[in-house]
Order: sequence, then structure tokens, then C-alpha cells
Amino acid sequence: MEFSSKLLENAVNEISQLPGIGKRTALRLALHLLRQPKEHTHNLSNALLNMVNDLKLCKSCNNISDNDLCDICANSLRKDDVICVVEDIRDVMAIENTASHKGLYHVLGGKISPMDGVGPHDLNINSLVQKVKEGKVKELIFALSPTMEGDTTNFYIYKQIKDYSIQTSTIARGISVGDELEYADEITLGRSILNRIPFESSLKL
Amino acid sequence: MEFSSKLLENAVNEISQLPGIGKRTALRLALHLLRQPKEHTHNLSNALLNMVNDLKLCKSCNNISDNDLCDICANSLRKDDVICVVEDIRDVMAIENTASHKGLYHVLGGKISPMDGVGPHDLNINSLVQKVKEGKVKELIFALSPTMEGDTTNFYIYKQIKDYSIQTSTIARGISVGDELEYADEITLGRSILNRIPFESSLKL
Repeated sequence: MEFSSKLLENAVNEISQLPGIGKRTALRLALHLLRQPKEHTHNLSNALLNMVNDLKLCKSCNNISDNDLCDICANSLRKDDVICVVEDIRDVMAIENTASHKGLYHVLGGKISPMDGVGPHDLNINSLVQKVKEGKVKELIFALSPTMEGDTTNFYIYKQIKDYSIQTSTIARGISVGDELEYADEITLGRSILNRIPFESSLKL
Repeated sequence: MEFSSKLLENAVNEISQLPGIGKRTALRLALHLLRQPKEHTHNLSNALLNMVNDLKLCKSCNNISDNDLCDICANSLRKDDVICVVEDIRDVMAIENTASHKGLYHVLGGKISPMDGVGPHDLNINSLVQKVKEGKVKELIFALSPTMEGDTTNFYIYKQIKDYSIQTSTIARGISVGDELEYADEITLGRSILNRIPFESSLKL
């Protein structure tokens, strides 16, 4: 792509570093910004800089936060002995949207994935195990994605805490609500038959 | 969407103002920036600010430029009496990529489109007509999109310059190279039969 301006070229190159944005889309975005009043770009730029410079991680759960403790950890109405273990903050937001979890979270910051060079020590696992050792936890809910990496991570954590008398659970796996059975994959369908639930309890959900 | 941080929320809101980017994509981009070293965001932010603050429009053709005259207008090897009229700078880049035009450009900045509230006076039409009046132009090539708005704009300009003895042409319309005839729309196909070209001349292309 030939640019008539170095400034435009730089902007397009920087924008196209973002995931999922190619040169053409970057050019469209840059031209859009040029057509808008300058304040739009100033606001965008300030919001990005403030975010990367000032954003903190919650000292307790590693969720993204403006303060030392995130709003969830600082909320005294939540059960602080039920901890939901998630991969990243998007999962916190997704679960919070369902309003189904009244306890706290623990954000690992990823999954154990040797293929991507992510080992247990790259994740916030030690601080979680520490919470369990200190007797602060009654139940751990593993809410990682049901993939090989997710299962590996669940099991790695489980091994370290299994000697402490706490409950552990994992989110239910089965056919998604609204899915057609014929399109479900074999493993999910097979397991959902084996792990079937009493019909009466499904009525209460 | 519930955010655990005002800073993140601001950034997501600003990013999602960009065309074609929704809240979910904006969140993904913001989290990507947070995972990168801070310099990435600083570079992005600087590139955007420099672009909107320092970018100029070429005094002659309204193309985007770092100087008063764009590289194309300042290039003495190009024919300065053959002017290709285009809608915006993306069209300049597209035509430049084909290396088929050796003259200069004139960027209108849009098309006449009463539905969008764009009239002739919102576009750089007067400066084009002025160039023609000053006898600087031998040929005008209309290279607007073949839509109703493009045709209206072509015709509006044509009416103002038709009394000056210059050549005017418009880019060829017909079936795209590689297209299947059965999928071509009726108007394009019909016109391409009426405006058929001698077979010998098609061999030279």
C-alpha cells in the first residue's frame, strides 16, 4: 500500500498492530478519525493512555480495578469464602452478567498451555493456593473453558489443594440451552447422558 | 456490559466509537493493549495525535499530504494537464496501485448526495472548475463510483466545464475481469453489450 503521507502511514501501521485489524481496516479507521473533529482523537488517545498508565490489578483477585481492591472484593455483601476461578477478566464480566455467583473471583491470567509457553508459574496460582492454605476458602468453583488447557489447569490447582477440606466444583458441561442435539459434538453429548440430572431439579432452574 | 474499572470503561467506550467496532471488540482490543508493553499504546496514541494534528491537504488536489503540495502534484514527471477526478484519497491509492494513470488527481472529498445532506458546495468542485477555466487542463477523467450519486456528481461538474474545449472521459463500466456472466447485474451486462469494444483493442490490454 502506497501512502501519500508518512503521518498517515505511521497511524495505519500502528492501528494495524491491533488483533484482527488489517491494513485496509486500519486505513478506514484512520480516515474516519481525520474526518471527525480533532477532539475525538484526543479523547481516544487520552482514554488509552490513562488506561495503560493508571489501571491496577486487584491485590486479592487480580481482577482489573481502579483501586487496590476491586469492587467485587471490596463488597462486604458477597460471600468471601466462595471463590470462582476464571481465566481472565472477560470471564468475570460474563459471569457477573448472569448474576449467578454471589462469591468472589480469582483471575488466573491465562491457562497452563505448554504449546504457548505458559507454565503454572506464569499464572496467579500461588496466591490462590495461599488463600486456601490460610483457611479463607470454603468452596472453589473452577470456571475455566472446558478445553485441554482448561482441564490441565483445573487439575494442577486441584492437586495442590486437595488435602485441605474445602469443596471444589466445576461449571456444568452439557448441551447449551437452545442447541439442536444433532449438531452437538459426540463428547459433549455422551457426557451429558452419563452426567444426566434428575428431571425435577432441572425444572427449578 | 459491567466494568470493574472506570478507566477500562472509558477506553472501551472511546474505541467503540470507531466505525465497525462494537463494545465486545473494543474490550478485546483494550485488553490486548493492556497485555502489551506500555510503549505500544504510547506509540499508537502518538501516531494518531500526530496524524490529526499535523496532516495537511495538498493545496492543489486536496489529497492528504505532509507538505503543501502532495508527492503526486510535486512530481514533475507526471502530466499536469490530465486530471483524474476521484471521491476520496482511498481512490487515489487504489488507482496509484494500478500504475495506469500518469497524470494528477483532484479529490472531491465526497459525492453529491442530497440524502446525506451533501451538496455541491460541500465538495472541492469550485477549485476543479477554476483549474479548467485557467486552461490548465487538457483531459478530465471522471473516476467516481458508478452509482447514482457518482453519476450526479460527474454530470454536475460536466455541465460547468462543457463549454471549455477539454476532453472528458469516464472510467470504463462493464463486467469485472474474472466475473461469471450469469452473476452480473442486468444493467451492467446490458450496457457492456451496447458499449462493446473492438476485439482487437481488447487484446492490447
